[in-house]
This record gives sequence, C-alpha cells and structure tokens, in this order.
Amino acid sequence: MMFARVAIIGLGLEGGSIGLAVRAYLPGTTTTGYDINPATRERAAERGLVDRVCPTAIEAVREADLVIFCVPPGAMGQAAAEIAAVLPPDCLVSDVGSSKQAIARALSEALPNHTVIPAHPVAGTENSGPDAGFAHLFRNRWCIVTPPQHTNLLKLTELVAFWEALGANVEIMDAEHHDLVLAVTSHLPHLIAYTIVGTASDLEDVTQSEVIKYSAGGFRDFTRIAASDPTMWRDVFLSNRDAVLTMLQRFTEDLTALQRSIRVGDGDALFSHFARTRAIRRSIIEEGQDDSRPDFGRGDHEKS
Amino acid sequence: MMFARVAIIGLGLEGGSIGLAVRAYLPGTTTTGYDINPATRERAAERGLVDRVCPTAIEAVREADLVIFCVPPGAMGQAAAEIAAVLPPDCLVSDVGSSKQAIARALSEALPNHTVIPAHPVAGTENSGPDAGFAHLFRNRWCIVTPPQHTNLLKLTELVAFWEALGANVEIMDAEHHDLVLAVTSHLPHLIAYTIVGTASDLEDVTQSEVIKYSAGGFRDFTRIAASDPTMWRDVFLSNRDAVLTMLQRFTEDLTALQRSIRVGDGDALFSHFARTRAIRRSIIEEGQDDSRPDFGRGDHEKS
Repeated sequence: MMFARVAIIGLGLEGGSIGLAVRAYLPGTTTTGYDINPATRERAAERGLVDRVCPTAIEAVREADLVIFCVPPGAMGQAAAEIAAVLPPDCLVSDVGSSKQAIARALSEALPNHTVIPAHPVAGTENSGPDAGFAHLFRNRWCIVTPPQHTNLLKLTELVAFWEALGANVEIMDAEHHDLVLAVTSHLPHLIAYTIVGTASDLEDVTQSEVIKYSAGGFRDFTRIAASDPTMWRDVFLSNRDAVLTMLQRFTEDLTALQRSIRVGDGDALFSHFARTRAIRRSIIEEGQDDSRPDFGRGDHEKS
Repeated sequence: MMFARVAIIGLGLEGGSIGLAVRAYLPGTTTTGYDINPATRERAAERGLVDRVCPTAIEAVREADLVIFCVPPGAMGQAAAEIAAVLPPDCLVSDVGSSKQAIARALSEALPNHTVIPAHPVAGTENSGPDAGFAHLFRNRWCIVTPPQHTNLLKLTELVAFWEALGANVEIMDAEHHDLVLAVTSHLPHLIAYTIVGTASDLEDVTQSEVIKYSAGGFRDFTRIAASDPTMWRDVFLSNRDAVLTMLQRFTEDLTALQRSIRVGDGDALFSHFARTRAIRRSIIEEGQDDSRPDFGRGDHEKS
C-alpha cells in the first residue's frame, strides 16, 4: 500500500526534510535524491538526506514509484521533462510547490502519460538549502493535496497516507481554491514582508543601523519571512499572479482606509479595527498552528 | 545616585515589568503603583508587581523621586494632571510611550515646574495587562531616552543608570528623530500587520477557518503583533501621525513597484529585491535583537 522507492528531485529545505522524515517515520521505504547543484548533492550525501544521492535525475527516478519535485515552481516543467524518457509508467508524480494550478499544468505537459497529483505541505522556515531540513518539519502542519478531476484514487490514497506518515494533516482541495487561500495566508504576507524590509533599508533619514537596533519594536517579525529563498518566491509570485494581485488589491484598499483614519484622527475607527484582529491570533494558537508563548517563545532557551 | 522611591502609573505589561525588574535588579529601591482599573490594581497586588499598590495616583506619587507613566500615549496628559498638585518638586517625570514628541508636550504642559525626561524601552510582547509583565523584559533591549534641550544632566544620568540596571542598553536621541525611527521599526509594521489580518478576515471566497488552518505559510507571523493592545496602538498612530504617514507613503510606493513587477512578469526585478532583504535579518540576529533559531525557535520546547 505504501511507496517502496521515493525519488526526491531538489534537496533543499523541503526535499531534505522529506528524505529525513521518510527515514524517521517510514523505515520500509528507500529514498533516492538528486539536486542540480553539485555542492548541494555533496552536502546531501554528507547529511544522509536520502539513502542514495544520484549524479543525475534520470538515475534517481529510474526505479521510483513516487517522484516528488522539490524545486522552485518555475523549474518544475524542465525538471519533469528531464526524466520523462525513463520514469516508470506506474510512478506517481507529485511536488511540494506553493502554487498549484501552474505547477499542475507544467508537470502534466512534461509527463502526459503519468498520474500527476500535486501537493503542498504548508510548512517551512526562513532557511533554505541542504542544511535547512529536519525530520519533524511536517509534524502537525497541513499538507494540501490538489488532485485533478478523475484522478487515480488508489494513488491519491497512497499519497495521502504518505504525508500522514510524515506527520502532516492532509486536506484535499481543488488547485484553484488552493491558490486563492495561499495567496492570502502565505504569498501576500511574504510580499508585504519583502516590501517593508526593502522600504526600511532605503531610507535616507533613518540609518540601516538604527533599523536593526530598534527592530524589536515589531520590524524584526517581518525580517524572518523576508529572509526566505528569493528564487522560490520570485517563482511563486509569477506562477500565482492573478490570485496574488487580487489579494493585494484588497489589502491596499484596507490600508488606504486605515491611512485615512490616521490622517483625519478617527480614533474610534482605528480602535474597532485593532480590537477585532486579536481573535484570529487566539484561534491560530488554539488550533496548534502557532506557539502560545509571548514573542513566539523567542529566547526562552537562554533565560534563567 | 539611584532613585529610592519609584512610582509607576499604569500596571500593564510595561509598568508591571518595570516593577518586577526593580525588585529583581534594584533591591534598594521601593516601588508604589497605581492603575485606573480596579481589577488591574487587585491583580497587581496579588502578583506583587510593586511593593505597594495604592488606591489613588496621588497616594502613589506622594513620596516618589521618579514617576514613570506607563499609560497609553493619549492618556499621559490627564494622568500627569491628576498628580500635579502633590508631586514632590524634585521628582523626575518619565514615561515609556512609543511616541515621544506628543508625550513630551503633554507631560510638560501638565507638569510645567518639573523635570520631564521621556523614555521608550523598545521591548514588549503581544500580551497586555497586569498578567503580562516579567522582570527580564528589558534585558538586552534598547531603551531610547529623549531629553529636552537644557535638561537636568544629573537627573538624566540617574535615569540612564536606572534603565541600565534593569538590563537595557540606553541610547540618547532627540524626540523628533525617535519618532521617525520608530515609525519605521515599530509603528508601520504594526499598521501593516493590523491591516493584513483584517483583510484576511473579511474575504468572502476564503473562509476564516481556512486562513487559520493554513496560517503557517507566513500569515501567523503577522497575527502576533496584530494582537497587541488596541488602545495603545490607536494612541500611537494618532500621536505620531506625521511620521507614520510619511513612512506609509514610502511603503506604498515600494509595494506598487513590486505589484507592477508581478503584473508584467519581471522576474529579475523581483529576484533582486528579494535577494537583498536577507542581509538585514542576518544583522538583526548578529546584534542579538532576534533569535537565530529557525521559525523564531517556535515549538522547540515541545520537540523530542
């Protein structure tokens, strides 16, 4: 019922974590891996991210019954085309990309005779590369699986079981809705964080050193996600353009309304807006999606 | 050289933390405290936030040689006026507010015959109220002191020594520059966080439950500061209006430029913007202003 040989293409944070998680939670499954970057392959072998690091993608997938593409969204089509000639016909094709409609198209075009079931584990950190992964990255996080219509239900069941074995809670969703939901819960937050960190670096009347020193006033929270992998995020915005622009339009309208309240001194409007945003934080903590300790528990390990 | 009797007006996160820090680090100093809310006074007495919780502000300050106002920016003037008649003439007046020019004016108008030296410890959490404070809140954080021109240098020195004793690093700055620096490192981040959390709650095509479930994609980082005290933040934006609107204008320009890059598919512009924001995160960590562990060290206490 479970995949016996999993090939992981791309050995950064996500790919490396999948490899480590398989080793930890699915001892019956063997893993192969490939990364386009030779230094990443070398480091992946040193850390043992997969059972066998291969010098080519073709070699990595040759006997796989599941291949997971863990490359930036814009590189999915090319990575899939590279292995099309040798991929076993029964091998399930999946991925971990943050946008789903564009990736589903790219994978299906490159591998028209294979079953493609895209997935997106909503888990990550600001770190990237072969040193960033760890086995419990997916534990108690959601993994959204976006099967196309009329998909192979047996393979879908196997993919769901795979992610559950890695500790994730799985949700089935259509790709279009996924792209809208993630536009607001992930893509827009990253875009805004990248923007404000850029704005703060470009000021003439406040030095960068001052921005860094006094970042504990709130700014530092934004710098974490603005330190995420730039290639991946470039591709996310380009591949989920319409949903991101829609959400950005809503955000800009709301920001303009608050700006107006500040300008005209409408304290009541500000207060009522600020009071209602507390409840969401509470729900996120109650559902186990964030740490309940103040300040995310920052620095608690070094306190007396 | 050090203050012997410190009166704290307002016993929430900041006032309570000052009281606890004085007890921990300045055993020779006694503290009195007052809060306008009877339930807060009761809880403050239970937790021992100060040596003596007083039923009136007048009683709390009657013998003080330092009074620190820890009330929302908009309440500073009224709180100071209330004690004007009884405040010992030599008592130094300070505060912890997040905007400095407006508060300096309000305190000086209410207490024209006293030395007023405003201060702003750049430290806090998303929690508020008498249960939120803790003694090490200020440790390794910056405290910005904004003395007026021709101030009493002896009292300034004493105030600096006081904050250093509580664990803070002190910086002297003029109030106008403080307000500009904090507009970008604290006020703008809060405004943006409040906005996006509001935007996400108001969508018709994405449910609030979906926003909460998939918040680990980035959104949850914003909910922390959007859970901050609404009264205080209303007052911060109203009292530092000009600097906030200036910074907001810069932010909006930068966001519009990125929006255009997404719309026209300019991947190079996106990449080069995203690549340069990583360095700031690194500097913040190097200077001890944030936790170096991935994800702020979230959940590390519960991992095997």
